[in-house]
Amino acid sequence: MDGIERCDVLIEAGWVVPVVPHGVVLEDHSVALRGDAIVAIGPRDAMRARFQAGDTVSRPCSVLIPGLVNSHTHNPMTLLRGIADDLPLMEWLQGHIWPVEGAVIGPEFVRDGVTLAIAEMLRGGTTCANENYFFPDVQAETYRRFGFRALVGLPVIDFPTAWAKTSDEYFAKAADVHDAWKADALVGATIAPHAPYTVSDANFERVRDFARERDVRVHLHTHETAQEVRDSIAQHGVRPLARLDRLGLVDDRLIAVHMTQLTDEEIALCAERGVCVAHCPESNLKLASGFCPVCRLQRAGVTFGIGTDGCASNNDLDMVGETRTAALLAKAVADDASALDAASALRAATLGGAVTLGLGDRIGSIEPGKQADLALIDLDDIESQPLYHVISQLVYASGRHQVSDVWIAGRRKLRARELVDMDLPAIRANARQWRDRIRQIRTAR
Amino acid sequence: MDGIERCDVLIEAGWVVPVVPHGVVLEDHSVALRGDAIVAIGPRDAMRARFQAGDTVSRPCSVLIPGLVNSHTHNPMTLLRGIADDLPLMEWLQGHIWPVEGAVIGPEFVRDGVTLAIAEMLRGGTTCANENYFFPDVQAETYRRFGFRALVGLPVIDFPTAWAKTSDEYFAKAADVHDAWKADALVGATIAPHAPYTVSDANFERVRDFARERDVRVHLHTHETAQEVRDSIAQHGVRPLARLDRLGLVDDRLIAVHMTQLTDEEIALCAERGVCVAHCPESNLKLASGFCPVCRLQRAGVTFGIGTDGCASNNDLDMVGETRTAALLAKAVADDASALDAASALRAATLGGAVTLGLGDRIGSIEPGKQADLALIDLDDIESQPLYHVISQLVYASGRHQVSDVWIAGRRKLRARELVDMDLPAIRANARQWRDRIRQIRTAR
Repeated sequence: MDGIERCDVLIEAGWVVPVVPHGVVLEDHSVALRGDAIVAIGPRDAMRARFQAGDTVSRPCSVLIPGLVNSHTHNPMTLLRGIADDLPLMEWLQGHIWPVEGAVIGPEFVRDGVTLAIAEMLRGGTTCANENYFFPDVQAETYRRFGFRALVGLPVIDFPTAWAKTSDEYFAKAADVHDAWKADALVGATIAPHAPYTVSDANFERVRDFARERDVRVHLHTHETAQEVRDSIAQHGVRPLARLDRLGLVDDRLIAVHMTQLTDEEIALCAERGVCVAHCPESNLKLASGFCPVCRLQRAGVTFGIGTDGCASNNDLDMVGETRTAALLAKAVADDASALDAASALRAATLGGAVTLGLGDRIGSIEPGKQADLALIDLDDIESQPLYHVISQLVYASGRHQVSDVWIAGRRKLRARELVDMDLPAIRANARQWRDRIRQIRTAR
Repeated sequence: MDGIERCDVLIEAGWVVPVVPHGVVLEDHSVALRGDAIVAIGPRDAMRARFQAGDTVSRPCSVLIPGLVNSHTHNPMTLLRGIADDLPLMEWLQGHIWPVEGAVIGPEFVRDGVTLAIAEMLRGGTTCANENYFFPDVQAETYRRFGFRALVGLPVIDFPTAWAKTSDEYFAKAADVHDAWKADALVGATIAPHAPYTVSDANFERVRDFARERDVRVHLHTHETAQEVRDSIAQHGVRPLARLDRLGLVDDRLIAVHMTQLTDEEIALCAERGVCVAHCPESNLKLASGFCPVCRLQRAGVTFGIGTDGCASNNDLDMVGETRTAALLAKAVADDASALDAASALRAATLGGAVTLGLGDRIGSIEPGKQADLALIDLDDIESQPLYHVISQLVYASGRHQVSDVWIAGRRKLRARELVDMDLPAIRANARQWRDRIRQIRTAR
């Protein structure tokens, strides 16, 4: 047929929310994929006339959105979901999380935890994770095996762990993992100093140089609690952000995770330097860390993404729910019911995360030329009725179980709720084995 | 067989969380139902030996809990889900909600909205609602028709509405509806003055007398916002609770909804008088009303339930999600990660709500003699793995879509995710008709 173009997949959705342009809902639109990319978006009939598709997926009661970007998570800890709740932070870490991690951490734990997390993320419409844990080499291989997009954090911390014993070893291993994955299309790396209170000035300077030399982002927990800020003042004479600035780390490479404690001057500094924030509202609530002032960030022009944090402090990887929590909480924190409206919350969970991860030119919106990272969400459930506003329904009234189909880089990962290339019963059985093993360890202690 | 007892239904669950005793998880236990009541609870094998059941429901991967009690909702407004979001309170009410309500309110709207809400509530494990809207006669009939447990609020407000024109008419109609339903096993009534700022002293005194004469609870929005408290001081010289106390309303009949603004003295007064609170965290967040100090209430011994509020300000009737939000938010508000632990949050959503509604002797826990209002929640999903602590998983990691089966007063209402006696396609079609009608009204204005 003359003038007909080929595409691999044509997705026909009741609605497409491309995120760019902002707040737009396109009714009865289709998106054409070729290879790993989006090639076109347009009205259904025009797209049918224009494209001959290898596969057509028609979902007249669903909305197509960019895949959700989890801007901060510790996915191996999915194996520790709910192991210890409702405890003060230090008791939780020192009495429960660290001892268990100490007993089980290693390549197997990391591989199996990331695998479980990928299954959960795909079933919830998440297509990219900003990972932060030990054994980034194993993480990278696991994400690659399942075709899941991720940045793995290359850990730096001042004390020895199962991953590395000395600062030199941390940086040597970081360089190795970075170099091994630097050309990969799906998996990349950040350098990930743990937190201001666990990393020395000398190591932060090495982090800075590592990031500049290799052009990677710096993934850092900071300003998580008031205690952290107080301790920094006591130890270093300044708040963490000022210390980081002194060390040359406050720039557009910095992914600042949590940021519940912020002065207006600090927000202005972040805006000026292009610092991005990973906002983890449910973790901040559950650990009583404080409230990240996302409305003030937004007004100042600071880009932020949304993250679930790890399953030991959330206790899920549900980006649909996390986005709703972000939208609801922002209003009460700002004392303004119009703060972080639904469209802005959805943008934070997609393009905001993508920009935060340095992937804003590749993912986070449905635009020709971008990677085909997509999720379809069914709005036919009785809980989605009546349907006045698609984006409102998505953010304020939808559950992750309504996600029906997911693509990453053009590859189908979830098909009508079924994982395409993952063995769910085996993953479930494996998680149970880990539970039994961890229970034995805890009983034996 | 000698010594064998008959029961109508034997529910065999992987776990039973009876709520009383507090925090207990019973593994491989069964619950026997006869007629509308729970007759026994015990280990599976012992129960099999003891009972011959008309019907046995085996769910080895599910947890059985008391049905969730929605302590405050406006269910007819489910038809307005998401009609206007992200707006300041007064613009939302005056520019959107009230004009639409003015155009559509009436028996049909109330009946259809409540029907839609019942379908949603059942699919989410909710078995009882504390309703607050106009046309309580129609609400009562609708709840009765579907065998759903509810208290309907008998509205009192100082201005004319479609329900009544004068104070005398409000109270006359309240008396009629109360009398018509006072002997019903499932549906009862509260007297429901709207709010301190819309009800005069004279009408509050009539409310007080109505409640005392008929032995019903008083269902009242109060201390919802700082503005309400300021306005009360300006108009009445005292905060709303002090004014209500002057009018003789601060007692164990009062269901105080929202309560985001509370001094220590007010909390002590509520504890002393037996006032119960309906905590609606997501509505309070979404409308930027403030934060209800549930941890302080709990420490003072004030009973509280959890409510979703109406779908125009939430935007769902998801008590599973609302309970999680309550548990998460309480910690950040109290600055204490151990505040409102999972078991306490679940108790608030069940027995706390039951006591708040004056039904603590009949529902809210799984105990012999209580009404068989029950929900089964599937914990076999990959999102529920690994499973260390059942109550933690329920509160922090489960979604309402995992609710598989529901009973109210011993009658099966949801069977393996299917509504037993509701026509879901018809309800969906009806909701769409209302949407189209309401859209036309809004376009025409």
